[in-house]
Amino acid sequence: MINNLHHTGPLTEKRQALYGHAGGVIWLTGLSAAGKSSLAVALEQALCARGYACYVLDGDTLRTGLNANLGFSPEDRQENVRRVAEVAALFAQAGMVCITAVISPYREARGYARQCYAQSFHEVHVAADLSSCEGRDPKGLYRKARTGELAHFSGVSAPYEIPLNPDLRIDTGRETLKDSLDTLLRYVLQHIPHTT
Amino acid sequence: MINNLHHTGPLTEKRQALYGHAGGVIWLTGLSAAGKSSLAVALEQALCARGYACYVLDGDTLRTGLNANLGFSPEDRQENVRRVAEVAALFAQAGMVCITAVISPYREARGYARQCYAQSFHEVHVAADLSSCEGRDPKGLYRKARTGELAHFSGVSAPYEIPLNPDLRIDTGRETLKDSLDTLLRYVLQHIPHTT
Repeated sequence: MINNLHHTGPLTEKRQALYGHAGGVIWLTGLSAAGKSSLAVALEQALCARGYACYVLDGDTLRTGLNANLGFSPEDRQENVRRVAEVAALFAQAGMVCITAVISPYREARGYARQCYAQSFHEVHVAADLSSCEGRDPKGLYRKARTGELAHFSGVSAPYEIPLNPDLRIDTGRETLKDSLDTLLRYVLQHIPHTT
Repeated sequence: MINNLHHTGPLTEKRQALYGHAGGVIWLTGLSAAGKSSLAVALEQALCARGYACYVLDGDTLRTGLNANLGFSPEDRQENVRRVAEVAALFAQAGMVCITAVISPYREARGYARQCYAQSFHEVHVAADLSSCEGRDPKGLYRKARTGELAHFSGVSAPYEIPLNPDLRIDTGRETLKDSLDTLLRYVLQHIPHTT
């Protein structure tokens, strides 16, 4: 967890005045194919249109860059989530609303992520259930996980620990993306209001 | 190097309109105690005062967070710089001016950093020479490096590969911080102009 003494004080206020809102982390957690990335990108577009400084950290995309040297073992997943948590906190300290889309299957790791930016961390459970996600299976990952071709797959051959007290839970298994976005956007506008 | 397809297109333009400038990376490289962090923070303040969306990634600070699990062996230094390069590129993709203050002693690693955000990457050699840095030694690190208490110390017991063709070179060994800042700020305002 970063020592953020440098990033408190006058610059924080200047940034808040410049962007019209405080920094924060919107942490989307859920199974593969639950709709995290779609929701994250839709939220980013909606916030950008409203003049928010915001950015998506997508787990799959980061695995082609920052996390390209990590696999899917429990240790690597933990390191994957730790790095995303640290970077999300940097973005929030920089005054932005950082939206993360990472499975982040372990409660402990999500708790760590919260501690990295406790002043404005919002855990959102993107809560499509396993059968919905497996029914979609857009990348054929569940099929590969069932045949054993893909190991350590959250919800199939590795745990996904459901959030017990998320700040928001969205049932993307039943709702349309538009309805899910409406719920999420309303939450963000309320909790990280834009002053202008 | 991140696959940034998601981050090109309409949102990039929206961000540029919102912030009044494009994203970019100002990469400060130089020996320990050359004045990278001081210069980075001074630049951040000067840019913030001019309405820029900007943020400092400081190597020492990151070693308490994102890079807390890395040491100073050549492999760990390489990974340290790689992660900073990837995160700096994320900030630039998010539309911000990201200022990094990391020794980054190897040419190859700095070249990698440039490739991560080639469209607007600016290598700045903070070029106080070894005797100036060692004369200052604010944290007593050179003394420890000379007695062998500290291993792999750039410029003493590990290489520092001087940039051959930096975009800017600033002699922080002779100049005052104010003069160095003036030079750096002029460069940034010219190469990443603010439109408003």
